[in-house]
Amino acid sequence: MQLSCKTMSAEEAAELIRHDEILGVSGFTLAGYPKAVPTALAKRAERLHAQGKPFQVSLFSGASTGDECDGALARANAIRYRAPYQSNKDLRTAINQGKIFYTDAHLGIMGHWIRSGALPHPTTAIIEATEVSDDGKIRLSTSCGNSMEFLQMADRIIVELNSLYGDALAGIHDCYLPDMPPHARPIPVSHVLDRVGTDFVQVDPEKIVAIVHTQAGDSVHPFTEPDEISKTIAGHILEFLAHERKKGRLPSGLPYQSGVGNVANAVLTAMARNPLQEPISLFTEVIQEAVFELIQSDKLIGASGTALTCSAKAREYFLANAFALKRKFVLRPQEVSNHPEVIRRLGVIAMNTAIECDIFGNVNSSHICGSSVMNGIGGSADFSRNCLLGFFMTPSTAKNGTISAIVPLVSHLDHSDHETDIFVTEQGLADLRGLDPVARAHRIIDACSHPDYRQQLNDYLNYSVKSAKGKHIPIALDRAFNMHLRFLSDGSMKE
Amino acid sequence: MQLSCKTMSAEEAAELIRHDEILGVSGFTLAGYPKAVPTALAKRAERLHAQGKPFQVSLFSGASTGDECDGALARANAIRYRAPYQSNKDLRTAINQGKIFYTDAHLGIMGHWIRSGALPHPTTAIIEATEVSDDGKIRLSTSCGNSMEFLQMADRIIVELNSLYGDALAGIHDCYLPDMPPHARPIPVSHVLDRVGTDFVQVDPEKIVAIVHTQAGDSVHPFTEPDEISKTIAGHILEFLAHERKKGRLPSGLPYQSGVGNVANAVLTAMARNPLQEPISLFTEVIQEAVFELIQSDKLIGASGTALTCSAKAREYFLANAFALKRKFVLRPQEVSNHPEVIRRLGVIAMNTAIECDIFGNVNSSHICGSSVMNGIGGSADFSRNCLLGFFMTPSTAKNGTISAIVPLVSHLDHSDHETDIFVTEQGLADLRGLDPVARAHRIIDACSHPDYRQQLNDYLNYSVKSAKGKHIPIALDRAFNMHLRFLSDGSMKE
Repeated sequence: MQLSCKTMSAEEAAELIRHDEILGVSGFTLAGYPKAVPTALAKRAERLHAQGKPFQVSLFSGASTGDECDGALARANAIRYRAPYQSNKDLRTAINQGKIFYTDAHLGIMGHWIRSGALPHPTTAIIEATEVSDDGKIRLSTSCGNSMEFLQMADRIIVELNSLYGDALAGIHDCYLPDMPPHARPIPVSHVLDRVGTDFVQVDPEKIVAIVHTQAGDSVHPFTEPDEISKTIAGHILEFLAHERKKGRLPSGLPYQSGVGNVANAVLTAMARNPLQEPISLFTEVIQEAVFELIQSDKLIGASGTALTCSAKAREYFLANAFALKRKFVLRPQEVSNHPEVIRRLGVIAMNTAIECDIFGNVNSSHICGSSVMNGIGGSADFSRNCLLGFFMTPSTAKNGTISAIVPLVSHLDHSDHETDIFVTEQGLADLRGLDPVARAHRIIDACSHPDYRQQLNDYLNYSVKSAKGKHIPIALDRAFNMHLRFLSDGSMKE
Repeated sequence: MQLSCKTMSAEEAAELIRHDEILGVSGFTLAGYPKAVPTALAKRAERLHAQGKPFQVSLFSGASTGDECDGALARANAIRYRAPYQSNKDLRTAINQGKIFYTDAHLGIMGHWIRSGALPHPTTAIIEATEVSDDGKIRLSTSCGNSMEFLQMADRIIVELNSLYGDALAGIHDCYLPDMPPHARPIPVSHVLDRVGTDFVQVDPEKIVAIVHTQAGDSVHPFTEPDEISKTIAGHILEFLAHERKKGRLPSGLPYQSGVGNVANAVLTAMARNPLQEPISLFTEVIQEAVFELIQSDKLIGASGTALTCSAKAREYFLANAFALKRKFVLRPQEVSNHPEVIRRLGVIAMNTAIECDIFGNVNSSHICGSSVMNGIGGSADFSRNCLLGFFMTPSTAKNGTISAIVPLVSHLDHSDHETDIFVTEQGLADLRGLDPVARAHRIIDACSHPDYRQQLNDYLNYSVKSAKGKHIPIALDRAFNMHLRFLSDGSMKE
């Protein structure tokens, strides 16, 4: 079949999408998401709404997409339901106003849920690709995300064929999905760079209903130099790792996972700039710009992720060095990059950012004051629960010191005291492993809390140890959220 | 070496243990724990305390042990620190009085933590066995638990050689531990009855310092008939499974995990007594007495667990039919029975008991009013986070209706809204998959809460939807624990 006859404009492709459909879009943390069709779809929705006609879709993705997709569709009031992750300002606002339904799910399980039938499958997949052949071989662009699952499960496929990368991405993908139970075999990945699948996704070419030519890059902000607080946190982590290695508790060769954001970037940057640092490998979600600095300083063995997030400058570097870089990079479906089986097997050292941590060891990664979602839990739990050693990092205060990141009780709980290992702020590092709850509370307050809040936290702990019915986790339910309530009423957690 | 010359009394063996040691004992949920030496050690501790001498140990186990171990040592004030699980009344009381430090950990990770160095290794292992050879081959008894790890890592080994089972348990164990990173291979278990290790544990015979002969059975309470509430819950689950199968969302052949307790037992019993039930397999922690009824009604393909929990009556049945039964049973180390890799691969259907569930989908499995530990999180999260489909079951009220199991916010969080699938009470079943938080709240209140508490929960939800700053998870931090606080002050959650 000649697929070229399916070529059309983004506007024409957007006309193919019906009200109430479930769309499965490519894209993971601003890498490889469709741009032209969602923007055209948003315009179409606005036209239909102006005519008094309903038009909304459910939107499934890998993770966050760019403003051309999540932002445009949210502003057009074209999204009814969204899963499993987002980071767009306008979309977030609409979710927190209760205008868009949102399921904030573990990134490693979303595709598995769709394949098992726990979630309905997308009716239309909109996937950014760099190549598509007449017999249905699709080469993805800068992310794998859930694209394989969407391509397999959707009734119809719209391809955004992006010419920006030429064939520079050819061979970077490892398209493999785990078997579904009850006849599943082990996932044969035992090293970061193991390749176990194909470098393209095979689809039924009959399902492809549109091919839209594009050439716009991912809208990724340029890398910014780590600030002092991030550098201090990174320093605590590197010092601790060296200490653990010296104690014989940390074999060399364990890969790192690095969450998205400034602090995680600062750790990689610090490694890149440390002349004593041995070369490392990464088994992570997002291959971020800081990874290029590791390569340039000859400290990267290899990096496995589900997305390659490049600002315009980093993209230029990648395109100029694609042949060499691709030997060091593998992009996998997020079902594999975030799979408990592989993460536990490799013994990943996980580094994720917290919004707040409580004194008994729980972590909130997703919701402000328990109710407003920031981005989502993302893959943090996929890694933190299955890693060999896990760090949660956060500056000890936020908003000019009016918020303490260490609180009596997290207002939303993503990672429980049963599984968190290490908390780090610029104040210091608390190794919680094997500590009972009261010992954890003292350690966290002493090592991690900001001095401005230390007395307040100790006062709470003293009160709760006295007043709690049980002394195992002496929580005072009547005062556990007082710091949050004070912030909500007075604009500061400070007494 | 002639190990028989290491034979001694329990009292003599107890003399070998020093103050401040870390003991690693066999045993998982009252199966296969050492009995004579811990009891003798408790007596020794009491004698030393009477002389004004300090004597306390840290106690690591598989999971809960019997009163001869956990109870005797707790009453003797001989435990300083305990991990990862317990269910003994006196030990629990001491923990909740703040007299014993307790780390409540996921059961599948404890052995891995010890092998990786995250926790210190036991200095002395006290392991119940049914056979020990001069060249250091140890045949375990009714549980595997963490015994392999303790035997490998401990400096010294005390064996309680129990003659009660003769050779009836020979061949039931599959002694295999996953490789440690960074050079780990896949765990080659793809079916419930796959055997991938040896049927004994090999130790260095030089490490064995004592062999104590015993013949006492595990102190397991006899099976009780399911009550009406448990039967109703079981009915909801079986009806839902049939519905899912009909919808094509549940392939046949998926194994079940069944938590410990009346409700979980009721589900297995209902399956055993349903003439239309197809034979099932179990990939679980504890092979409980209800499993025998499945066998007798020809409905068990096979059961994999880490413990075989037998009351005196069930033990009699097992001993009389050991040869046939062993072809249907495998006992594995809890690192394997509870391993995310294997649970996810097999597509386990998980059924666990909750203490309380909240309207947004979070579950508390471990702590009463947030502060008093009941038993512990156990393996519930190992299964619920990695299963294909997970149920949390609880009667809708407790303590004569003064406690609602459905609350605005759980007072301790073990399983987050990001990962819970299905809640079931005798009132009904709520399928939460894919629902946003507010939809979840309505579903849970309507389907699962007791009518006596429904108005109160709806009033809270209405208030919180209005008052919460963010509407994604409209939680009202000022009233979230009001039902718990009312119970603590008035003895009832009722308004």
